[in-house]
Amino acid sequence: MQNPIKLIAFDADDTLWANQPLFDDIEAELRQFLSQYGTPDELDEALRTVQAENIALMGYGAKGFTLSMIEVAIKLTNGQVTGTAIQQIIEQGKHLLRFPIELLDGVDEVLDALTPQYTLMLITKGDLLDQESKLARSGIGSYFTHVEIVSEKNEATYRKIIDRYGIEPAELVMIGNSLKSDILPVVAVGGQAIYIPYHTTALHERVETSTHDGYTQVDSLRDCLPLLLP
Amino acid sequence: MQNPIKLIAFDADDTLWANQPLFDDIEAELRQFLSQYGTPDELDEALRTVQAENIALMGYGAKGFTLSMIEVAIKLTNGQVTGTAIQQIIEQGKHLLRFPIELLDGVDEVLDALTPQYTLMLITKGDLLDQESKLARSGIGSYFTHVEIVSEKNEATYRKIIDRYGIEPAELVMIGNSLKSDILPVVAVGGQAIYIPYHTTALHERVETSTHDGYTQVDSLRDCLPLLLP
Repeated sequence: MQNPIKLIAFDADDTLWANQPLFDDIEAELRQFLSQYGTPDELDEALRTVQAENIALMGYGAKGFTLSMIEVAIKLTNGQVTGTAIQQIIEQGKHLLRFPIELLDGVDEVLDALTPQYTLMLITKGDLLDQESKLARSGIGSYFTHVEIVSEKNEATYRKIIDRYGIEPAELVMIGNSLKSDILPVVAVGGQAIYIPYHTTALHERVETSTHDGYTQVDSLRDCLPLLLP
Repeated sequence: MQNPIKLIAFDADDTLWANQPLFDDIEAELRQFLSQYGTPDELDEALRTVQAENIALMGYGAKGFTLSMIEVAIKLTNGQVTGTAIQQIIEQGKHLLRFPIELLDGVDEVLDALTPQYTLMLITKGDLLDQESKLARSGIGSYFTHVEIVSEKNEATYRKIIDRYGIEPAELVMIGNSLKSDILPVVAVGGQAIYIPYHTTALHERVETSTHDGYTQVDSLRDCLPLLLP
């Protein structure tokens, strides 16, 4: 990476702890339940349409996701789904708000190694209370000098954060698993970025990209250390 | 008020624009629909129980409120409520996320009068995207130098804000309609506060208080001006 680095920012969900697999599990259960009401294609289409519309209105996170799952069930069953089945979806949605946080491999080690030398920040998007609660449950809150919970991670968001903390864009390194949210907008505003792909990515986070210009890709969080502590 | 004042902070919902009446309307419609399934007392009890549990887990705001209304409908009907009826509740919940913002009387005049002399801040609690969207729809965003969207307005929250902006507690004046969220915690940390009661208050915002120690109560936003521009 280029020096000097003044701020190292981490994405949280699926960078420091597993998150998307829990959403995938609930979607899979809903698919199972709804398989009697439509073809897989019809289900895909309903999931895509409802989620796209609701994310724009409701933002990211478990509550909007739960409302989307309920709407998909209503849509596919032509309104015939029972209250009892919907309560099951709500219970699964509540699980997304209180599941035990499992740190990904190497998180403690990497944060321990970086804190003596760098100021660390967490930048995560979603619902305020939900993200605050996940960080509290994770037990790693004390590593981070700053925590920014935002509704969208785009160029404007990163510009605002760079301004707020009074650094040059190139003095920021962002580390995360989403090209769309953690990497490309940071590179676009002149920051540095380390991309660590995760085995599953939410549909709304997927982007097509053909070049690796301006960012570094590694296989695991531990691989960041040689880049940051040369 | 005591001088010097360095920061004047406003609550948003039901201080600058009407918010609670929309939630009350939806609750009233749900009561009407559910009146065939239980007594008013049973409905009160279900609303209170479900909302208390869900606010702790989901925080404040329209998405958690919508999920609570759905759960109350399921509970009162013993799971018999149809998907079609639940979709209607979801549509009403979506209305809470995009209704046109109606500024309360005197808002523009008061903000216009205060901006030349003071730094203004908005402090509001709820879901990030929802509160950002309401501020954008309100058209008064440019009056505020700072916007803080928080998950809870308690003493710790106000202490953090006072620290972040490097002021003394007494240099903050908070103006709002909720004794519990806008007034009492501000007074407790040494700040100044102006309480403007609104005609309807959410159940979870109601507190019993017998003294007016440490804050000033006025009837309308306009009445703040003589206090702040002597």
